[in-house]
Amino acid sequence: MTLAIDFDDIRQAAQRLAGQAHRTPVLRSRSADAISGASLFFKCENLQRMGAFKFRGAYNALSQFTPEQRRAGAIAFSSGNHAQAVALSARLLGMPSVIVMPQDAPQAKLDATRGYQQGVAGSEVVLFDRYTEDREALCRRLADERGMTMIPPFDHAHVMAGQGTAALELIEDAGSLDALLVCVGGGGLISGCAVAARHLLPDVAVYGVEPEAGNDTQQSLQRGEIVRIDTPRTIADGAQTQSSGLLTFPVIQALVKGVLTVSDAQLVETMRFFATRMKLVVEPTGCLAAAAVLQGAVDLRGQRVGVIVSGGNVDLPRFSALLAS
Amino acid sequence: MTLAIDFDDIRQAAQRLAGQAHRTPVLRSRSADAISGASLFFKCENLQRMGAFKFRGAYNALSQFTPEQRRAGAIAFSSGNHAQAVALSARLLGMPSVIVMPQDAPQAKLDATRGYQQGVAGSEVVLFDRYTEDREALCRRLADERGMTMIPPFDHAHVMAGQGTAALELIEDAGSLDALLVCVGGGGLISGCAVAARHLLPDVAVYGVEPEAGNDTQQSLQRGEIVRIDTPRTIADGAQTQSSGLLTFPVIQALVKGVLTVSDAQLVETMRFFATRMKLVVEPTGCLAAAAVLQGAVDLRGQRVGVIVSGGNVDLPRFSALLAS
Repeated sequence: MTLAIDFDDIRQAAQRLAGQAHRTPVLRSRSADAISGASLFFKCENLQRMGAFKFRGAYNALSQFTPEQRRAGAIAFSSGNHAQAVALSARLLGMPSVIVMPQDAPQAKLDATRGYQQGVAGSEVVLFDRYTEDREALCRRLADERGMTMIPPFDHAHVMAGQGTAALELIEDAGSLDALLVCVGGGGLISGCAVAARHLLPDVAVYGVEPEAGNDTQQSLQRGEIVRIDTPRTIADGAQTQSSGLLTFPVIQALVKGVLTVSDAQLVETMRFFATRMKLVVEPTGCLAAAAVLQGAVDLRGQRVGVIVSGGNVDLPRFSALLAS
Repeated sequence: MTLAIDFDDIRQAAQRLAGQAHRTPVLRSRSADAISGASLFFKCENLQRMGAFKFRGAYNALSQFTPEQRRAGAIAFSSGNHAQAVALSARLLGMPSVIVMPQDAPQAKLDATRGYQQGVAGSEVVLFDRYTEDREALCRRLADERGMTMIPPFDHAHVMAGQGTAALELIEDAGSLDALLVCVGGGGLISGCAVAARHLLPDVAVYGVEPEAGNDTQQSLQRGEIVRIDTPRTIADGAQTQSSGLLTFPVIQALVKGVLTVSDAQLVETMRFFATRMKLVVEPTGCLAAAAVLQGAVDLRGQRVGVIVSGGNVDLPRFSALLAS
């Protein structure tokens, strides 16, 4: 079976992103090395534009629109980082964006998304009632009416290839790695990163990390087919997906060694570690990969380990409350 | 008049620090550029080892000890970042350290300092009662009794030269700058940075930034001599010094264009900006330089501006409380 993307797609994505995405730093921490017994290389995508790796995939997708697609613009549904990623990428490329969000989305996310749309004619946030309306149907109707192109949050080859540039840069900067830890929601980030990493370092062990409550991908790997779960209850809101995608899952199956899980309490401990020892604000989902190696979900003693810190978008009140908990 | 240090001292300090200090990243932020109208280059010393630039100066000083001095070790009085910098540098160089701290210092700082001293024979934290004991006399007595070398927090050529490596790296990474903003406590950081910056970029305008309540250096520059003030009330605890030093002040007089001030409220606003937009934990003192340009204390529109983010050591409860205020 042919996978949805190969290394060339990632290399081309990197060229499209040059000068647009930040080349985020790879940070080290002696404390983290001491705790894990490993040499850890943290790829800090919380320092990416709009605060998360999602910018990479969205920009890579939108920058490949035809002139006609550009005129009509992009549409996405998301209340999270993908919303902001599409809104910002669209503005940078001079096209409208429509973001469909639940009526009860946090004000901060609404404001941030509208902020990125500012000054672009035809851009708007469309709210829907998640109890009475069908989000997908609404999106499809809007897309049809306005001729806009829908960009899904993970199950899209251009999105996956864009996300893979995070691992490409990490390996360019850190050199050889024995293992790579990546958080898993719908699998966009890990599928792109696995393709990049296994191409550059065929023997690297790529591990996904999911919240305990939302281990659908772990179950899917065990079962050999995509397992769909109820929306999981976890503070890792970026990993509250119900299943991996039709394009991402085969890549995970082919290239990922295994999926680990961590508890919400371990995520909070890791947020605290990032804030106190590494002086970084990391959102709960962004702590997944680090939590696995810092909190003992996997023993990688003596190894050189890449850790993707996926994002930092957490409201200050929530951040403070979680740290105080 | 000959200044206490020249560029060669800084270049040599950089060689001593290679492989010991982190080469901290220089981060950009489009939001910060938009707010200030300038191109800002943030040198993130909050990501330095032990969480602040102070490691540079302490390590540079201790690594120049004679074998005899090394045997006896280093002594310092500080309840802040200098304490941890000396304790960590001493351990790395295999020598004892004695840190004199007030009895009522925060438990977190005591723990952190003792943590860095762990496993080094002859190392300890000595507590004193700041209402009944003379700290300097106590230090001098301990230094005499144990043959230890006292390392002051700023007024020492090796300390100043070490701190200057922050500006050296910033300019190597960012390229040419029109202005450089540096926080001022006792003047160790700004004197080193001014020597480095004015050597590499003779026309760069170096500005110091002090808390409004603690503008002793601003007054000193106006008066043409060192002015001593009462311990200022400000949340910028690293800049609660009463006067600049005998070695640092002449450098400031010779090479610094002016000293700006910002209020505590502006520091809190800047902490919030760093946490929400740049995903960085920055202590109040570390916000001084950025606050000047983000909060309008100086207009540097159209210029390329270096901003030293000096440290990130703030207890989580205090951090949360300040952000919520």
